[in-house]
Amino acid sequence: MDPHESEIFAANSAFYDAINQRDSESMDGLWASDAPVACIHPGWSALEGREQVMESWRAILSNPEAPHIRCSEASTHIYEKSAFVVCIESIDLNDLVATNMFIRENGAWKIVHHHAGPIASRRAPRPSRGPSRPPRGDLN
Amino acid sequence: MDPHESEIFAANSAFYDAINQRDSESMDGLWASDAPVACIHPGWSALEGREQVMESWRAILSNPEAPHIRCSEASTHIYEKSAFVVCIESIDLNDLVATNMFIRENGAWKIVHHHAGPIASRRAPRPSRGPSRPPRGDLN
Repeated sequence: MDPHESEIFAANSAFYDAINQRDSESMDGLWASDAPVACIHPGWSALEGREQVMESWRAILSNPEAPHIRCSEASTHIYEKSAFVVCIESIDLNDLVATNMFIRENGAWKIVHHHAGPIASRRAPRPSRGPSRPPRGDLN
Repeated sequence: MDPHESEIFAANSAFYDAINQRDSESMDGLWASDAPVACIHPGWSALEGREQVMESWRAILSNPEAPHIRCSEASTHIYEKSAFVVCIESIDLNDLVATNMFIRENGAWKIVHHHAGPIASRRAPRPSRGPSRPPRGDLN
């Protein structure tokens, strides 16, 4: 495996470890410190800027009922100094799909964006943008 | 405005124009041709690779009932030769939130990843990862 790919997979795993261990300090260190960051938690608008993003993670990780997330099917796409991972996030019996974007900052791969949202099916995907079936209708 | 920011906004607008005009050829030209691409349509698993992604767009854009998508609140985050835009996609009365990632390829900004999913509220975002309220439950 390409060393950058290994590092990105490791950074992606560390992100889910930080969630599962409710480790806000580790989470903070995984995100880019200088480059602009954003985060889209499931179902919510985008958070923009490090302060707002980290505040959201501190709130999530301080919740004693925060769920365990199992990350699977991670695949990496690398473009010189940036990359993104798509993966499945399993929470109890629910699956989400996530995009995690990374950049190379000070010699390490750091998260600049996380976007997670519901997934209706693990079957082969199909186009679903229809006017009579808005996307959220697919979830029922 | 930074010239790269203008170009990225223009590429992002062209993406929604291609959807609204059901223009598969234009859509094809907006995506990177050499770099790896992926796409997460609302509610579905990730599509990986140019062939699979373009096949999905051809299917969507050939649907005469394909909805009009209004893009708003676009904000750009630039990292040298890569960038991402987060924006709201409004379809009828439904809002989605989208991440569109771009890279610089052959002197132009090209899409490498699109991820759109439901949004429960346009109010100020809040953390919502709770075990008793799985994210898709937030949509009800």
